[in-house]
Amino acid sequence: MSVQSWESRARRAKDVLLNSVPKQWILPAHRLPPAHQNNVEDFPRKSGVLSDREVSITEMSATALVAGMEAGLLSAEEVVIAFLKRAVLGHQLLNFATEFMAERAIARAKELDEHFKRTGKLVGPLHGVPISVKEHFEIKGRTCNAGFVAWVDDIANEDALLVQYLEKAGAVFHVRTNQPQSLMHICCDNNLTGATTNPYNRTLTPGGSSGGEGASMGFKCAALGVGTDIGGSIRAPAGFCGAYGFRPTTLRIPATGIKVPGPGQESIRGTAGPLASQSVEDLDLFQRAILDQEPWETETSLVPLPWRRVKATKDMTVGIMWDDGCVRPHPPVTRALQHAKEKLLAAGIKVVDWEPYRHDHGWEIVSSLYFPDAANSQRTVLSQSGEPLLPLTEWAFAYSRASALTIPENWALNYQRDAYRDAYHALMKSREVDFILCPVYVGAAAVMGESQYWNYTAIWNILDYPGVVFPSGLVVDPELDPVDGGYSPRSEVDAREWAKYGPERYEGAPIGLQLVGKRFKDEETLAAAGLVSDIVQGRAEVIKSGL
Amino acid sequence: MSVQSWESRARRAKDVLLNSVPKQWILPAHRLPPAHQNNVEDFPRKSGVLSDREVSITEMSATALVAGMEAGLLSAEEVVIAFLKRAVLGHQLLNFATEFMAERAIARAKELDEHFKRTGKLVGPLHGVPISVKEHFEIKGRTCNAGFVAWVDDIANEDALLVQYLEKAGAVFHVRTNQPQSLMHICCDNNLTGATTNPYNRTLTPGGSSGGEGASMGFKCAALGVGTDIGGSIRAPAGFCGAYGFRPTTLRIPATGIKVPGPGQESIRGTAGPLASQSVEDLDLFQRAILDQEPWETETSLVPLPWRRVKATKDMTVGIMWDDGCVRPHPPVTRALQHAKEKLLAAGIKVVDWEPYRHDHGWEIVSSLYFPDAANSQRTVLSQSGEPLLPLTEWAFAYSRASALTIPENWALNYQRDAYRDAYHALMKSREVDFILCPVYVGAAAVMGESQYWNYTAIWNILDYPGVVFPSGLVVDPELDPVDGGYSPRSEVDAREWAKYGPERYEGAPIGLQLVGKRFKDEETLAAAGLVSDIVQGRAEVIKSGL
Repeated sequence: MSVQSWESRARRAKDVLLNSVPKQWILPAHRLPPAHQNNVEDFPRKSGVLSDREVSITEMSATALVAGMEAGLLSAEEVVIAFLKRAVLGHQLLNFATEFMAERAIARAKELDEHFKRTGKLVGPLHGVPISVKEHFEIKGRTCNAGFVAWVDDIANEDALLVQYLEKAGAVFHVRTNQPQSLMHICCDNNLTGATTNPYNRTLTPGGSSGGEGASMGFKCAALGVGTDIGGSIRAPAGFCGAYGFRPTTLRIPATGIKVPGPGQESIRGTAGPLASQSVEDLDLFQRAILDQEPWETETSLVPLPWRRVKATKDMTVGIMWDDGCVRPHPPVTRALQHAKEKLLAAGIKVVDWEPYRHDHGWEIVSSLYFPDAANSQRTVLSQSGEPLLPLTEWAFAYSRASALTIPENWALNYQRDAYRDAYHALMKSREVDFILCPVYVGAAAVMGESQYWNYTAIWNILDYPGVVFPSGLVVDPELDPVDGGYSPRSEVDAREWAKYGPERYEGAPIGLQLVGKRFKDEETLAAAGLVSDIVQGRAEVIKSGL
Repeated sequence: MSVQSWESRARRAKDVLLNSVPKQWILPAHRLPPAHQNNVEDFPRKSGVLSDREVSITEMSATALVAGMEAGLLSAEEVVIAFLKRAVLGHQLLNFATEFMAERAIARAKELDEHFKRTGKLVGPLHGVPISVKEHFEIKGRTCNAGFVAWVDDIANEDALLVQYLEKAGAVFHVRTNQPQSLMHICCDNNLTGATTNPYNRTLTPGGSSGGEGASMGFKCAALGVGTDIGGSIRAPAGFCGAYGFRPTTLRIPATGIKVPGPGQESIRGTAGPLASQSVEDLDLFQRAILDQEPWETETSLVPLPWRRVKATKDMTVGIMWDDGCVRPHPPVTRALQHAKEKLLAAGIKVVDWEPYRHDHGWEIVSSLYFPDAANSQRTVLSQSGEPLLPLTEWAFAYSRASALTIPENWALNYQRDAYRDAYHALMKSREVDFILCPVYVGAAAVMGESQYWNYTAIWNILDYPGVVFPSGLVVDPELDPVDGGYSPRSEVDAREWAKYGPERYEGAPIGLQLVGKRFKDEETLAAAGLVSDIVQGRAEVIKSGL
């Protein structure tokens, strides 16, 4: 046991961070928006740090950036510098980073530029795309703490396998991002580098556990981001921060070198996946760039399914799930679903209502499987430093049973899980529904520390359905989203979540939506989400008219 | 608790069996070979029960039977009657059945014939093929005991999903087959219907746990059989009985309705798969007939990989594993490998030696994962009837640790398993070996009750490699296979297995070989095994010369 206090150990994570921030782009405090200014999303164009060209670059999609580099209109170096500047600003305002990697990123960008100059060719489909990455992905020679003070000095021997594949595809990693203690909050606070905030409203959480990624995408500190999701940890941050996120079916994206307590747990699998600041298309680009490299040839537990090229058509049926039967979504979320329904119908898409099937039962299974060892794996790591448990850590651990499950109890839950999956799939087929459009969360986002209800995302983890989050284009608006005083909650949990709503508490929060598809229909789900998001955001017409 | 003795409960399984045997084809005892005659494999053509045409029919491959029916040369009814006759004989000699289903089979065959007469078309790729099936596959309205006396009265509500798919493809089920107590012996004895014997030498076991299937294939009681394999339970019986068997990669063949203790265990997965009496081609036919029906649309835990059509070419490298580094194979097995090597080289196939990689470590993992609950799931079912544990049940349970694993201990083993898989796969790639040709078992077969060493098959279960067993065409021969007195065993286990050898103990046993391929390369492995078995058996030249 170390005799150091947990505070002094935690301080080292702050040192890593502070020493890594590129000093030349730090803005003095007096030029930043005041602390009471909640919405800072638009600050980059007013900051004076980024040129107009740099602002434009940081608001391009990954797809467009690569096209720009292929056409010789952009250099990888200027692209990464633009994003580094924006990321430093973003960090000053949102505390989303755990470590900048400016030197590595700029050196890599120069290499890419030289390669392109020499050969006239891109190195791969992500050539020069700046990508932010959640801290618990190991990066060679750097610390990896996964949100635990005890691991603050752990140094990785190798880049995580996913990072290796992305880099081979041309990606540039410039910043690592924050995560909550235990990795199991839909929020983003820890005892190391503290809480990250939401660029659209700094009283809100950016979501979690990939909360640093949510902020990174919302503030456009990177074109793509890398998160992980076992209960909503990619999708909630994407939804809360007005960005795009994709949770693939498990066993498609490599997991080697992602640090977690209790590796080898497989009853409810997590998966890595992308977030994007600009488009669903970029999520597909990310998946393609990885899967075209056949990662199952190295991480053999992956399923050898090549990434298929799928084009969306309007010939599909979308089931809208207005409510999961347990906890009613807040009024802005219902408004966004209503808006989506109208747009989809107007576009000629078949839309039906989706009656949820036993989401309470699904939650019973998944919540029992998150911590079958009564969270002892996590508690052990926490106790190694003596750091205090944050309230949302206690909250998550409370999902576990009072004592550890036995192995046969775990088997019984696996069996129930598979039966539930079979039944849900049979229902989708019998109702002829291809995709389910649903809330990402009870609300458009959560106030810091309040995100307690996971099951608008976790249900798709237990079912292992691919899910895409995209912005509806709407934001919470006190005029349009008054409190509905007439609603009688069904349960204590329903009442607790309903009581949190007041439009002023969420003002300006973007309202995300989630489209899920059948297990292993990742390609179809992304293609459909691309079309649905264009329609819902009103971009489909623009595209159709040729603009 | 029942107050009945276990013996009286067990008697009911015998009653089910005895009542089901079609009386008209039972041969009086005096017309059977004498009890001391070990090899009875050739008895059908001398029995007088089957006509010459019927003998020929039962020695056709499934592929040829279907072709014969499509050409109108055979009816499904005459085919199933021929196989029923042979199966009744086989049962009298080998005690391999647990229940005949003659009425169901004949009714189904008539239906198929009517369909063909009416439409001129087959119902599917297995039209009219008689298939035997291991007892622990549930069959609607019939008992399913899985080898446990306690379950003797359990009635199934539905056919196992695999049975449903096979029947849709045209299969005819005429007989259910025996399995050992606990399903975890490479042998085939239980307290219900007793021990099954090997058609080539009735002092030998047919292997296990799909031992009834081994005997069924060896005696040609069906063209195809259905077994399950978690440690060798398809491959050992195929090898011991001169037949063909295939263990697919897991999660390709449906498991719903296969009765086992402790469902939901997934650290080391079992899988169903085919046995065949005549050819590797028939194993491929079986796989194709199932996977073309997209079983993942019903059993959603399956991986949605369609069955690919793969043609073998000689452009491959076969690594021969002469010894697993732990237990030396008996002389006949080494002779068969040497024979195979010569044939393959003569055919122009690239052959190298395969140095095994830590098979002791692999065994440590897999044996710890067979009974992580200290076999309490099995012991509980056994204690419910009070039936005594057979010696090989005690033997298998002794693999488990003294006390049940905790969940984190189980996770640690999962993690080791995946690391071992990754390392083994990397080695196959770096050595440029496509397939490994190796023993099926220490010996050509095992004397009843002696099959104690599992790791020539179980190692491929922990690695999850598809494996095909086929007869080398050679049999144990005292002239050619003397005891090698000069060998110094490496360990007690090695000494124990070596001491079992004496050519007279195994006389006449067919020597099987096993070809394994990389995970999920099921199609390639079967295609290669088809070519390799033709070459090793000397059929390749026949094929080449157009005969």
